[in-house]
Amino acid sequence: MPELTLLGTGSALGNEHAFNSAQILNIREHFYMIDCGEGVQQRLLKAKIKTNRINNIFISHLHGDHCFGLLPFISTMSMLNRRAPLTIHAHSDLGKILTPQINYFCPDLSFSINFNHINPRKNEIIFEDNHTIVSTIPLKHSIPTCGFLFEEKPREPHINKKVCDDWNIPLSYYPLIKEGHDYIDEEGKCVKNRLLIIDAEKPKKYAYCSDSAYSEKIIPLIQDVDLLYHETTYEKSYISRAKLFLHSTTEQAALIAKKANVKKLIAGHLSSRYKTKEDILRLEKEIQTIFPNAQIGRDLQKIQF
Amino acid sequence: MPELTLLGTGSALGNEHAFNSAQILNIREHFYMIDCGEGVQQRLLKAKIKTNRINNIFISHLHGDHCFGLLPFISTMSMLNRRAPLTIHAHSDLGKILTPQINYFCPDLSFSINFNHINPRKNEIIFEDNHTIVSTIPLKHSIPTCGFLFEEKPREPHINKKVCDDWNIPLSYYPLIKEGHDYIDEEGKCVKNRLLIIDAEKPKKYAYCSDSAYSEKIIPLIQDVDLLYHETTYEKSYISRAKLFLHSTTEQAALIAKKANVKKLIAGHLSSRYKTKEDILRLEKEIQTIFPNAQIGRDLQKIQF
Repeated sequence: MPELTLLGTGSALGNEHAFNSAQILNIREHFYMIDCGEGVQQRLLKAKIKTNRINNIFISHLHGDHCFGLLPFISTMSMLNRRAPLTIHAHSDLGKILTPQINYFCPDLSFSINFNHINPRKNEIIFEDNHTIVSTIPLKHSIPTCGFLFEEKPREPHINKKVCDDWNIPLSYYPLIKEGHDYIDEEGKCVKNRLLIIDAEKPKKYAYCSDSAYSEKIIPLIQDVDLLYHETTYEKSYISRAKLFLHSTTEQAALIAKKANVKKLIAGHLSSRYKTKEDILRLEKEIQTIFPNAQIGRDLQKIQF
Repeated sequence: MPELTLLGTGSALGNEHAFNSAQILNIREHFYMIDCGEGVQQRLLKAKIKTNRINNIFISHLHGDHCFGLLPFISTMSMLNRRAPLTIHAHSDLGKILTPQINYFCPDLSFSINFNHINPRKNEIIFEDNHTIVSTIPLKHSIPTCGFLFEEKPREPHINKKVCDDWNIPLSYYPLIKEGHDYIDEEGKCVKNRLLIIDAEKPKKYAYCSDSAYSEKIIPLIQDVDLLYHETTYEKSYISRAKLFLHSTTEQAALIAKKANVKKLIAGHLSSRYKTKEDILRLEKEIQTIFPNAQIGRDLQKIQF
């Protein structure tokens, strides 16, 4: 079951309880970092996630609160003598601005960095491995910004051990069964594949929508996802402020979740003005009025889905 | 009484309890920041120190763990609409490496930044205001590095109100008394100045010696200071490692404090390997064996001197 760890749920200013944006998505023990705000290393220590598990970092946009943690994080990984290459998926400006700093502060960098230049304005696949496909979700913000859709690939079905044993099917045949073949025994009797397997869990989908004004354009791209993280910088009474700064309110995030028929909504990127438990509960209530299966994300919270 | 707040006492890797190097020295309600490691804003929030109180930042050297907090901190101050100019005292490379980032991430910076290029290899005065004089302390590290000596200027004496009242001295005469004048009354009787004043507190001295191998050259520069912060990356058994990386051990920091006849020693910049209370107490004991009035600094600790 995929697991999301929220490392930072605050907006640009942050506060004592909420660091800047950063998350770790764990899909079958592959760890993807999403945004990388200042202090991400401290958060990883607290969340007990090892830095060397992370090979891909996805940056939604180049506002500091989403990427100021990169340089210190890279520096630390080099001090820890990381060898595996690291890929950073981000707008092409990032490489230009970050490379001189890396060269200055980490002249003996112990690993290579690959910048995958993405176009935040386009919906396209930007990454694929054996387990996951990642595509961009263009968002509406003051600079080119995108969210990311993580789609788990289908898992192989499980072998139905009991049935296979009843038919004395040799282990060497299991890979063929997993591929979908029926089994024909020595006497020519056919056992249908569907009897020999147990379906794997349904592959999951996670959508991360960082800074964005309300935009219904994203709805088809995040339709039916199992988990949606959507920003909610303000409560609904601040709608004009949200509009001005191209952010969303509680109500807007809930509406997007409802219209996209997502299973669960986590709202984050809260303005630093929301400091107390009461603030958080008030905003949570506002969201749940429209979309009941919603929560305000808290730093270091883990969500399995 | 000056007050030092330790914001980060960890070395390069830091750990959950120890952020990277950063401190605030408060001299008569003037706040000087010394080094600026990652996450300094979070630490200021916890220490309840307002960012707009800080007008001068002193950077000991350009290793990331001493300056990665600058860009995020500058960005935040701009978002908070700071107007007062900020002066950063550092090696000239800092301006070159930081300016393009500031221009990119803070295109509408709300205040001006003045880079005071210092020469870390030279002992000289680099800053002076009404209350404080700051000079550099050249250190022995892998890149140009200096510590800083903060010398409080003498305060004006206090008026001895009781004696002044006995002699019916008008308030308008007080400034002259504070300047050292005697008082002559209408009958020509002279009251000596020393009877009319109470000496102010003795001005204090604080020396910050960040990353450095053991170096007796600094002893005359920090002689008799009221408070010395000296790095202690390792316990004494790691002396060869300390030598290799141009850092100091517990024993070496204590020896410097003893030979310089300082009043109190705070040791910091501990290796990330020292995580537990027992580790800290063991190192503290090692130091106190040689220099009894010593402590290992803890994040968010405040020391008045």
